[in-house]
Amino acid sequence: MKINHILFVSPLNQEMRNLIEDYKLDKEFRYLTEEEISEEDLDWADAFISFKTRASYDYSKVKWVHSLGAGVDSFLFRKKWNDDVILTRTICSFGERISEYCLSYILKDLQYHDQFFQQKAEKHWKPTTPKMLNDSKVMIYGTGEIGQKIAQVLSFFDVEVYGVSWSGEQKEYFKEVFTVDSNSSLMNKMNYLINTLPLTEKTEHLINKDIFSGLSSVGFINVGRGESVSELDLIHALDTGQVRFAVLDVFQEEPLSQHSPLWQHPNVMITPHISAVTTAKEAVECFVDTLENLEKDKPLSNKVDVKKGF
Amino acid sequence: MKINHILFVSPLNQEMRNLIEDYKLDKEFRYLTEEEISEEDLDWADAFISFKTRASYDYSKVKWVHSLGAGVDSFLFRKKWNDDVILTRTICSFGERISEYCLSYILKDLQYHDQFFQQKAEKHWKPTTPKMLNDSKVMIYGTGEIGQKIAQVLSFFDVEVYGVSWSGEQKEYFKEVFTVDSNSSLMNKMNYLINTLPLTEKTEHLINKDIFSGLSSVGFINVGRGESVSELDLIHALDTGQVRFAVLDVFQEEPLSQHSPLWQHPNVMITPHISAVTTAKEAVECFVDTLENLEKDKPLSNKVDVKKGF
Repeated sequence: MKINHILFVSPLNQEMRNLIEDYKLDKEFRYLTEEEISEEDLDWADAFISFKTRASYDYSKVKWVHSLGAGVDSFLFRKKWNDDVILTRTICSFGERISEYCLSYILKDLQYHDQFFQQKAEKHWKPTTPKMLNDSKVMIYGTGEIGQKIAQVLSFFDVEVYGVSWSGEQKEYFKEVFTVDSNSSLMNKMNYLINTLPLTEKTEHLINKDIFSGLSSVGFINVGRGESVSELDLIHALDTGQVRFAVLDVFQEEPLSQHSPLWQHPNVMITPHISAVTTAKEAVECFVDTLENLEKDKPLSNKVDVKKGF
Repeated sequence: MKINHILFVSPLNQEMRNLIEDYKLDKEFRYLTEEEISEEDLDWADAFISFKTRASYDYSKVKWVHSLGAGVDSFLFRKKWNDDVILTRTICSFGERISEYCLSYILKDLQYHDQFFQQKAEKHWKPTTPKMLNDSKVMIYGTGEIGQKIAQVLSFFDVEVYGVSWSGEQKEYFKEVFTVDSNSSLMNKMNYLINTLPLTEKTEHLINKDIFSGLSSVGFINVGRGESVSELDLIHALDTGQVRFAVLDVFQEEPLSQHSPLWQHPNVMITPHISAVTTAKEAVECFVDTLENLEKDKPLSNKVDVKKGF
């Protein structure tokens, strides 16, 4: 496939442009804001590179759409997709970033950071022995690129890691992978549950009271998509102790509404969708790699299966 | 070497006794408190097993002293030691424990836990991209068992790890090991400095203003011994910004005095000597292993070099 005209639409345009120029690619580029794009630009473009998209855009004439984020729900969720158009996404260091995010909050819990912080404020010397990662059991929803990277990192510390996926296909670094509907009796033995699920028609509110009710005093971390979790059910699970604490990086609505009860919940930690940020440098590296593979008809490890939605 | 009479003196005696009985060792045991020990007990014993010791004890008749902790300064610091007596120490999972402790506080910093906690309290949605471990540089004082385990864990995340030791001997997982007096110009490029040094005549206040003055905005973690750091110089370094924050698990005086200015310093985190706790189970495993190796004249990986003091 030959790509000549490339249209960039993103808040990182300026930074990316500077970095792309170093590659001296023999292509024509347009760097526009969402407001500036015209019908003519979309007609002109062979490739459309963006974080998200407007429903009104007509991609039928571009050959390739490349998402600057890992999630592609803004392109696919409740939308039709022209199968002739290749959709790829940025993965790059997301696995590492999200793993460090998850590990940081698991260790904060095991090492009693909050308790020792409180004791310091009270000048109170009272030893409590931290728990160890190798005594912990973690269930990861989603065993793709990101879920598997988290499993790899946790396995390095001898955490007992389980996974959940649609297929239930066994994968490296997971002691066992279950299917979504397998309802494992292991659930109530888990110390932590990590959600990495993308948003698709099948995952919307997939993590709801049916799953929470099988848990006991779990630490819940959401680094997937806000809409794959029922926030109402999560709050109920927090209040009944099925979930001991929640660390949330993604929400049904972002930025999180000022009225959300999550802000004031004592057992909820909120981060503003920062666990897997695309930096301009990494985005450009991934874009250039993908462009090269595409033009040489090489396999694309970051190609989206449009039917699956990820 | 044959060991028949074993004297245990520790707050874990009861727990250890229960666990040791499972091994059905063909030995005679006495489990006593410090107050109960008599001259006769020390005459009777072939082996003395304890966390620390009283200066007045006469070990000249025991063959083997085994420390239930990793640090042996309470046996050796400013004391004479009879070279005929073998001194061993408990290492076991200390490396893992201390690594998880250090990693938890480094990740807390890189992931901006405090900032996001504050923003949550203010219902403030403001993304900041976490820093990554592979962008961090760490200097570890002490490249023994524990320092090297920390280096191994950090290297797994592609942290750039340097070490400092007396010999400067190069070791696995360290990009470079320096001697104590090498005064590397790399020091002011470090993001974190971790002290694992034991207390010996040579390490007392080794980490002082001479070292702090070469640092710039470093995160300092002390998991070695409190006396190897000058607390006065540390406070000065915190106030001048040479040290950005300090995480202290060990202190010149423990429990830390109510009058210590460290309690109220905003950039100091205090934990009550919990980064490497000996559990009864691990202590017994290490004791039984060491006993077996000793009786079979096998090499002792946990034997203390009395001259070096660790």
